Amino acid sequence: MHEPMTITAAADLIRREAISPTQLLNQCLGRIDRYEERVRAWAYLDREGALEQADRLTKELAAGQYRGPLHGIPIGVKDIIDVFDLPTGCGSKLWANSYARRDAACVARLRAAGAVILGKTVTTAYAYLDPPPTRNPWNLDRTPGGSSSGSAAAVACGMCLGALATQTGGSTVRPASYCGVFSLKPTHGRISTEGVLPLAPSLDHVGLMANSVRDLAVLFQAVAGYDPDRLMTSGAAVPDCLLAIDREVEALGRDYSRHRDGEYSRRFLRPAELYPDALHPEVVKFVEGVEYDLKTFPHAMNAAVKPVVLPPEFAQVHRRHLQVMAVEAAETHADRVRRRPDDYPPKIRELIADGLLVSRDEYRTASSLSHTLGYDLRMAFWPEPLLVPATTSPAPTPETTGDPWCNSPWSFLGLPVVSLPLGWSSDGLPLAIQLVGGDDREDYLLARAAWVEEVYRLSNALKPRPLPL
Amino acid sequence: MHEPMTITAAADLIRREAISPTQLLNQCLGRIDRYEERVRAWAYLDREGALEQADRLTKELAAGQYRGPLHGIPIGVKDIIDVFDLPTGCGSKLWANSYARRDAACVARLRAAGAVILGKTVTTAYAYLDPPPTRNPWNLDRTPGGSSSGSAAAVACGMCLGALATQTGGSTVRPASYCGVFSLKPTHGRISTEGVLPLAPSLDHVGLMANSVRDLAVLFQAVAGYDPDRLMTSGAAVPDCLLAIDREVEALGRDYSRHRDGEYSRRFLRPAELYPDALHPEVVKFVEGVEYDLKTFPHAMNAAVKPVVLPPEFAQVHRRHLQVMAVEAAETHADRVRRRPDDYPPKIRELIADGLLVSRDEYRTASSLSHTLGYDLRMAFWPEPLLVPATTSPAPTPETTGDPWCNSPWSFLGLPVVSLPLGWSSDGLPLAIQLVGGDDREDYLLARAAWVEEVYRLSNALKPRPLPL
Repeated sequence: MHEPMTITAAADLIRREAISPTQLLNQCLGRIDRYEERVRAWAYLDREGALEQADRLTKELAAGQYRGPLHGIPIGVKDIIDVFDLPTGCGSKLWANSYARRDAACVARLRAAGAVILGKTVTTAYAYLDPPPTRNPWNLDRTPGGSSSGSAAAVACGMCLGALATQTGGSTVRPASYCGVFSLKPTHGRISTEGVLPLAPSLDHVGLMANSVRDLAVLFQAVAGYDPDRLMTSGAAVPDCLLAIDREVEALGRDYSRHRDGEYSRRFLRPAELYPDALHPEVVKFVEGVEYDLKTFPHAMNAAVKPVVLPPEFAQVHRRHLQVMAVEAAETHADRVRRRPDDYPPKIRELIADGLLVSRDEYRTASSLSHTLGYDLRMAFWPEPLLVPATTSPAPTPETTGDPWCNSPWSFLGLPVVSLPLGWSSDGLPLAIQLVGGDDREDYLLARAAWVEEVYRLSNALKPRPLPL
Repeated sequence: MHEPMTITAAADLIRREAISPTQLLNQCLGRIDRYEERVRAWAYLDREGALEQADRLTKELAAGQYRGPLHGIPIGVKDIIDVFDLPTGCGSKLWANSYARRDAACVARLRAAGAVILGKTVTTAYAYLDPPPTRNPWNLDRTPGGSSSGSAAAVACGMCLGALATQTGGSTVRPASYCGVFSLKPTHGRISTEGVLPLAPSLDHVGLMANSVRDLAVLFQAVAGYDPDRLMTSGAAVPDCLLAIDREVEALGRDYSRHRDGEYSRRFLRPAELYPDALHPEVVKFVEGVEYDLKTFPHAMNAAVKPVVLPPEFAQVHRRHLQVMAVEAAETHADRVRRRPDDYPPKIRELIADGLLVSRDEYRTASSLSHTLGYDLRMAFWPEPLLVPATTSPAPTPETTGDPWCNSPWSFLGLPVVSLPLGWSSDGLPLAIQLVGGDDREDYLLARAAWVEEVYRLSNALKPRPLPL
């Protein structure tokens, strides 16, 4: 039976000195030895460096210095994010041995919080849609999704307990969902992108992956916040998400008494129309099942899922997202693709070429929609989260990384999203929902997501399966 | 007869379309083909990329777009300074194929001014004292100096018309002087070090090399100025150094009439005691000769060289410079040298080890001396420049990069320095003087240096020699 260890559980053992950072790292390295040859999650594994870090953190603990819940936790870092003196390959052939001269801002913050940086996880080329070498650990004939392919596969296998990812379209939530791990794509600008290869800066987010909602909050708390080197970062205060989670879940399973008939305990919204023909029937069935569960599980105490009509402009979102992404990707890459055509696989090349054909006016129109529609949408559903599927289908075969259709709207609008892998397809692949929240209120969103996770756990409806590997 | 082409002369030809940027580049490439195998000035030569840049700039000219005096000028960039999508090797084995994802600030400014970035010039390991593969073009059995070894050798050979260098101790002025080219180490903070590998940030300067003082001013005008990404950069206005030069030299050679007997035309200061046993007799003789020339050349119209007593604290400068450099180099490199000992040659390793042994108090004392002494010194000699030798000896044999004794005081104090290669040793090696100016007044300093250069030219005392290669 495979139930991957959470950061929360490991942190508890480490704090009580029931396990040392070095022992925990060795468990992860054992899993890498077992799975990596088939899964190919790592672009660069820093075995020796990680052992040194774990050793130092073990000694700190022995000296009574405890840095907090990431002390000694092995983390993987997507290979477009700089880690000091490891290569940042970006899925490029030419850049495979390009060593970073400093940590990206988010990596520096993880390190300060005590995390062990285990290595670089495979990214698709320049974090776009061209397929990577990584395979889905639930079925080696399926894609892990992309572009944060290695981060998702590594966390799914327990090779590391959490990972840094990024998302411009669906690059965090999609691979996390295909691989059955939890993910958070925060509000745009919440986590500094300093030291991260850009794809389309006004859409680029640093994302997080782990094996529980609470773990996501632990990671978020360490890396989120204003960065004076990156004016695009949000200046809004980072709320205490762990406290918010504790408050939200503490009464679960014991306050039936306070619940009155006819009242609902929690409210979720669902788009009145979000299930076009593009969605796989298994996904439709799965999301309807989750809605039914929330209404019927006793622990959920009659949660409500209400349809909400999205503004008509929402219909333009996918097209507009693609325009903004294409124009900005062209700005990032066009000069280089002309000079190094061999270093660009077909899909990213096509995106850049498309971007060069979008007019300035179209770009401005597209870009401004994200602001106006973002505002209208918040008015429509805030403060309740929107419940939507995380992917259009279970993980497809690996000549593609799958369809970001379910994710790109929230990248475009910059709204925070948590994904929860709550179910399985008929052939044993993970399926996930997304909860979408309001700007800069990851505390509300994570708390509600933790509530859902806990309801499923208490109802014995979260069914981890053995990794078939 | 070898007289290397100046940026000023080439710019005149380009502006008049007497030569195209592509033709000029091909001249430089021809010199590289002829000399590089013996001199080894380049860590990475971007032949193809440079031809593309020159072609684009040639087309711009044909379309009537002239960017100014750097339009189409081939420039070399020291290999610790990032150039987009070329490796930044830093003299490290591990980093040899580390491609930069963006231009350093100074490179971006050169590019905007129309310069052709020809490639990366050899640096010693991490810009310290360990010998490089580069050889002195005036004598292949001598060092070109360091750490900007390739920049100096390349400009001396006419492989490029100017180069970016850096200086923490004597890394710009020393190699420039050994190789017989002009150099400017500006005021500390004048040129952004964003995108440049640090050695000791409070001493690190970006420096410039070229074949005339006016060329240095052209380069300086393009790259100097406040950088919002680098708070250490000076916010002081960048003066118009080209105008200052024009005004200073315009009357030379024709206003004898205005000169009255007994008056001096210009005043220079020399330290009352700066010639310890450490100086090579040829250098002492050379500097005394320059002083004599300035007093006796008719075009100099009775310039005066007056001794000035330096503050007694000046005696501490070399020791204090070394302490600050060692502590900051340790801060930059200590973690990495522990992890990658094989990637550190002996001298830089020793510097780092020394830095770890300096106490915080010693460092603070050393660091504060640079401020107090800098102030006292300016009071002592401002606004006249100080005239001092640029090196302790002609270029020594290549098991060393030579002694930075003459340069480190001005790195420590952050005062701007221009070096002028005005003479030759008895065995045919270049010798140079330094002029030291006041903070942020590179205009005064460059103007006076141009005056000296012009006096020498008019007196037929600047004697370029054929490269023996």
